[in-house]
Amino acid sequence: MERALSWGLIGGGAESQIGDAHRLAVRLDGLYRFAAGALDIDPERGKAFARDLGISEDRAYGTWQEMLEREAARPDPVDLVTVATPNATHFEISRAFLERGFHVLCEKPLTTTPQEAEALAALAAAENRILAVNFGYSGYAMVRQARAMVRSGALGRVRLVVAEFAHASHGDAADADNPRVRWRYDPKQAGVSSVLADAGIHALHLASYVTGQSVASVSADFVSCVAGRELEDDAMLLLRFDGGAVGRLWTSAVAIGQVHGLNIRVFGETGGLRWDQEAPNQLRWTPLGAPTRILERGGEGLAPEAQRASRITVGHPEGLVGAFGNLYRDLHDAIAAARKDGTSPWLAGLPLADAGVETLRVVHAAAESARKAGRWVKLSA
Amino acid sequence: MERALSWGLIGGGAESQIGDAHRLAVRLDGLYRFAAGALDIDPERGKAFARDLGISEDRAYGTWQEMLEREAARPDPVDLVTVATPNATHFEISRAFLERGFHVLCEKPLTTTPQEAEALAALAAAENRILAVNFGYSGYAMVRQARAMVRSGALGRVRLVVAEFAHASHGDAADADNPRVRWRYDPKQAGVSSVLADAGIHALHLASYVTGQSVASVSADFVSCVAGRELEDDAMLLLRFDGGAVGRLWTSAVAIGQVHGLNIRVFGETGGLRWDQEAPNQLRWTPLGAPTRILERGGEGLAPEAQRASRITVGHPEGLVGAFGNLYRDLHDAIAAARKDGTSPWLAGLPLADAGVETLRVVHAAAESARKAGRWVKLSA
Amino acid sequence: MERALSWGLIGGGAESQIGDAHRLAVRLDGLYRFAAGALDIDPERGKAFARDLGISEDRAYGTWQEMLEREAARPDPVDLVTVATPNATHFEISRAFLERGFHVLCEKPLTTTPQEAEALAALAAAENRILAVNFGYSGYAMVRQARAMVRSGALGRVRLVVAEFAHASHGDAADADNPRVRWRYDPKQAGVSSVLADAGIHALHLASYVTGQSVASVSADFVSCVAGRELEDDAMLLLRFDGGAVGRLWTSAVAIGQVHGLNIRVFGETGGLRWDQEAPNQLRWTPLGAPTRILERGGEGLAPEAQRASRITVGHPEGLVGAFGNLYRDLHDAIAAARKDGTSPWLAGLPLADAGVETLRVVHAAAESARKAGRWVKLSA
Amino acid sequence: MERALSWGLIGGGAESQIGDAHRLAVRLDGLYRFAAGALDIDPERGKAFARDLGISEDRAYGTWQEMLEREAARPDPVDLVTVATPNATHFEISRAFLERGFHVLCEKPLTTTPQEAEALAALAAAENRILAVNFGYSGYAMVRQARAMVRSGALGRVRLVVAEFAHASHGDAADADNPRVRWRYDPKQAGVSSVLADAGIHALHLASYVTGQSVASVSADFVSCVAGRELEDDAMLLLRFDGGAVGRLWTSAVAIGQVHGLNIRVFGETGGLRWDQEAPNQLRWTPLGAPTRILERGGEGLAPEAQRASRITVGHPEGLVGAFGNLYRDLHDAIAAARKDGTSPWLAGLPLADAGVETLRVVHAAAESARKAGRWVKLSA
Repeated sequence: MERALSWGLIGGGAESQIGDAHRLAVRLDGLYRFAAGALDIDPERGKAFARDLGISEDRAYGTWQEMLEREAARPDPVDLVTVATPNATHFEISRAFLERGFHVLCEKPLTTTPQEAEALAALAAAENRILAVNFGYSGYAMVRQARAMVRSGALGRVRLVVAEFAHASHGDAADADNPRVRWRYDPKQAGVSSVLADAGIHALHLASYVTGQSVASVSADFVSCVAGRELEDDAMLLLRFDGGAVGRLWTSAVAIGQVHGLNIRVFGETGGLRWDQEAPNQLRWTPLGAPTRILERGGEGLAPEAQRASRITVGHPEGLVGAFGNLYRDLHDAIAAARKDGTSPWLAGLPLADAGVETLRVVHAAAESARKAGRWVKLSA
Repeated sequence: MERALSWGLIGGGAESQIGDAHRLAVRLDGLYRFAAGALDIDPERGKAFARDLGISEDRAYGTWQEMLEREAARPDPVDLVTVATPNATHFEISRAFLERGFHVLCEKPLTTTPQEAEALAALAAAENRILAVNFGYSGYAMVRQARAMVRSGALGRVRLVVAEFAHASHGDAADADNPRVRWRYDPKQAGVSSVLADAGIHALHLASYVTGQSVASVSADFVSCVAGRELEDDAMLLLRFDGGAVGRLWTSAVAIGQVHGLNIRVFGETGGLRWDQEAPNQLRWTPLGAPTRILERGGEGLAPEAQRASRITVGHPEGLVGAFGNLYRDLHDAIAAARKDGTSPWLAGLPLADAGVETLRVVHAAAESARKAGRWVKLSA
Repeated sequence: MERALSWGLIGGGAESQIGDAHRLAVRLDGLYRFAAGALDIDPERGKAFARDLGISEDRAYGTWQEMLEREAARPDPVDLVTVATPNATHFEISRAFLERGFHVLCEKPLTTTPQEAEALAALAAAENRILAVNFGYSGYAMVRQARAMVRSGALGRVRLVVAEFAHASHGDAADADNPRVRWRYDPKQAGVSSVLADAGIHALHLASYVTGQSVASVSADFVSCVAGRELEDDAMLLLRFDGGAVGRLWTSAVAIGQVHGLNIRVFGETGGLRWDQEAPNQLRWTPLGAPTRILERGGEGLAPEAQRASRITVGHPEGLVGAFGNLYRDLHDAIAAARKDGTSPWLAGLPLADAGVETLRVVHAAAESARKAGRWVKLSA
Repeated sequence: MERALSWGLIGGGAESQIGDAHRLAVRLDGLYRFAAGALDIDPERGKAFARDLGISEDRAYGTWQEMLEREAARPDPVDLVTVATPNATHFEISRAFLERGFHVLCEKPLTTTPQEAEALAALAAAENRILAVNFGYSGYAMVRQARAMVRSGALGRVRLVVAEFAHASHGDAADADNPRVRWRYDPKQAGVSSVLADAGIHALHLASYVTGQSVASVSADFVSCVAGRELEDDAMLLLRFDGGAVGRLWTSAVAIGQVHGLNIRVFGETGGLRWDQEAPNQLRWTPLGAPTRILERGGEGLAPEAQRASRITVGHPEGLVGAFGNLYRDLHDAIAAARKDGTSPWLAGLPLADAGVETLRVVHAAAESARKAGRWVKLSA
């Protein structure tokens, strides 16, 4: 297919959940061929899984280094590489691929430190490559509608943004010793933050994505509700944005009763919005002094960004795979435009390296604030 | 890819909504290559669209007849043909492909008369081919959970099933003369029924699919709310099922305020269930004398049928494309098993020819009842 | 208190649920003194309970006949009598009190036959007394808002009304022999209908109350889901209204999983409304082609009828007692106006004798239709 | 009526919303006679209004001082006095009535400083009088169910409580100069806090009421979203409770799109609860690893505290008046028991002086923290 780009995946092996989500999203619109992969830390297992997934023998790689060398040497290397490896490896892998001229979509968090993220962002700019970060919830049509409405002034100046990503995945104390859970709360393995860096970072990104404002300072409260955890399993962030908005952001891994728990509310001078990831096809909009309206994905009168992010008719739910797919679609168009020395108008709607940098700065500033009993920490741009 | 089957599509051209939904669903799991198509009544437009979609030149056909002849002559014909043409052509096309040994997934309604549907069902049986009907909502994981719960006896004997598919698509009288709407209410073009045959038939199918019971008799009330419509834009069906359940089924195209409007409630001796297509990842279950529980797709303790129909983690919505995709996945496994002279355990969960026959019998019996002021009409098996 | 009227209650003894609801509603606004009562079929128990409730010794009556004679003989008889006795006694008691010049609020159903209801209506008219029927859900502010919106033309011509009152109170087959349940399904005790006459009648009333149309003909399907019941525990009514609207009305006593289950949806040419008794402070309104709006009791811009029916600020729920209280408030104003030979503008919003007559005619016509396999039955005015 | 107590009201004049809510609640159960009142700062207006409400001439007082003197001198003084005057006067009036032996229900906040509140609490204890504070939301049946479930250990140890009271009442900047709004943000009139002391204090109370834990330390962020406001119109509190729970509490007056906005979520080791004031008849309970259950007021299996707080059958909503009424009912029983030198078992479920003290301490500590950029402030017991 002429328009199809070729895609490579690093990580996302047979045990990984996120690998599957990427592959579902990549396939959805038929805009990519899944051409190459280094899918597992165990080379043989990775190669076998790649072949199971239909990758040709010669592009089923044992390591990312092998993939890098051999793809770079091909006349038809992959057009886009997705990095879905453990967080600590994002920096090295993304850097290596960017340096060799690949466009990269990296899982969040982009790196483990803001400095690394800044270096990657600078590298991507220098190489004129796209470096995107998989803040996949920003792909939902009604998130994009919210962003468009804020930008168009439908809410007036934004005063306040209240975001949550509070789930129950680590709420069972009996899991505390489960190795799949334990490493997340060990600073040696997980860095300065656990639930904020893993889940809350999405709410953080959405807050900036929707309002168009960056965090200027933060005060944070980290707690470990389950005994024996060094890192936080619950956190509250107080925020000030550079455009004047105030933020309140709660994230938790012990909120028993919440299924997923990502939502965002934006309050402006002349209206408010509410969006919940578990009912992603609706956006609640309340103009000042008027009844709340329920806007529907696929409905009439939505912004072009939201219409583009919609595939099927109103009333038929689209879900997370569609949202991830929208990122891949935007990347497809941006890469195709870049090939022709052009720029896609949809590039601006993608979570790019700067989003990766900003969110990491906030996570690290929040961790610093939490260590200092909530002292406000300014973010240096 | 070894496991991938090859797929062909008839109809579903550039203007069609349903064609897109099929292609999204087919791509989702990577279980098929989209290998051949006759996509449009206009041969050149259809070929061009097929090529746009990545079909090779030689399998982008101008007519379904051409596709039939040439695919049948190939050593590697498509493994599955989807028929997404106007309703009146379903019979002829499906028959032709079944006769030449193809497995077929046909859009609903399977045909325009029960007699045609019976003939197709007999043909499929004689040829030992799969003939499935795209009652796509039956692919939702929580519909399958509901079915599994009924079968397991969680509700006791089913007393009552209440289903709705009531939307607002034709609620604007100003659209009455719009040709895209008008034909639907013209018996010469649409047959004996409009909204029941088009929308209500899904609710009808779900009622049987979930309860495991077939309609034994029906009384119907058809009305045309918008002036000038010969066929019904609103209908109510009273039902008796062969397993003793009573049914109430409302369908409408003028229900302004309802976005999609498909839902089903099942009431048994020892419990009740409720599922809504607009929130498809939840199933409400109330055991007799106990509080209502909200079961979540991807959650713990679901039936194998529901687990299989789930792709991503709990709390991340899946939507209609996933549901359609589940039909394609089941078909994939059934076709693969058939190749090996075996039977897939998942075949039983697919809406097959008998579902197409039964729903058409009910639609026609309902139309007869409506003509006779609601007289009860028995369904001959 | 000058403005307070005096109130008397017949029935509603210590075991009765409805008696309590009346007393709560009567007290709520301080518009009545509870002055007299004949509360129980057992005279001594009734007198004792009346005294417990603060009724003076001389007005705690043993029988309604005694109450009638003695109140009629007083210089200060009660201003309003509520009849909350078993259904079969409504006619006789209401007639007796109307004949002696009392205003009466009678529980629903007004009588056991339409003929009796007509006689009472004629009597009330002849005596120039108010005879109201406790269709208490019509007292909810947002029901009144719905009625006002229909009347103002906000929906255009009403095409369709879909109403439900389907609960689970008699869903447990183990209760079938419970005397408190059994009599309800015995035609000798309960008359021609069970769940329709008891619960569905409220949905029937709301349909007319909100649309302003009367039922012109009906087709009905009655079923007994629980073995051993002679009368229906589930019914579906198909309706034609005199203003051209079509109706679908489902009522059930075996809908396990529904808590209360009363709701109404009205669909017109230019908009739709939805109201649910379990969330009574909201009314969903969808103008044709526009997003659904959530109107809130106490919010801005509501009709005067809705504002009057609201006591506390928006966002603070009001419940059933408030709705019943609104009927008592309207009665208070109507009685006060009648004393001055005037008419209260709020009288029109009360469910009066004609509502009692109409609903009984429909119940009886439905029962007749059900006996005749759903044949349509016309209502003679 | 033997069991009826006599009640007096101070404040709550014709313009007051809260006065009406008290009178509705007092009347609801018929447990009090409204016997005396000093309802307005303007003596004549207050007396006239009292007479309109049915108070006898001699107990319609011009001032609270007059009421105090004359009631205290009567052989049959009021049994309970409700203080619903402006906040700054609560202390003086409550003190005066307590000193003369009256039981008092005071509107929240109990006083303007914790010291005053402590003095009142000490006085009430010394005089052996009941001093309750109108944290009226604690009267909802399902709040009491939540409290009972926490106490019974249904959630295990409480780890986390997340509460909100965020509305939109002062979201319109055009109202900033409206005198009815402006005073609330003027520290000279409103004290150290605006929206926290007015609205958030309810969420604060519920957090302690439900968990049974007191706040041990607080960090707060106060902001004024609308220009020109000295006091906060939005606040976030981080909390530590004495039983080990962590709290996050958000309150706002500028949250456009929220109607009322009070809710509470409690997360323990083995389960979670969620309750929303706008749907007060439901409580969502999720046991660890199991589906969420929806508990209904009036349903089976609830705790005695919740059953007692329920008046009508399940599925019929009760609202705020019922909740306030439950406080008055508990007060009635406590006062009746006190007359007999006994103690009511329901006294413990009332928000008493200690709740008034604690909430004020937290408000003041929060204000101090907010002034110090969120420094944690410990609460001295």
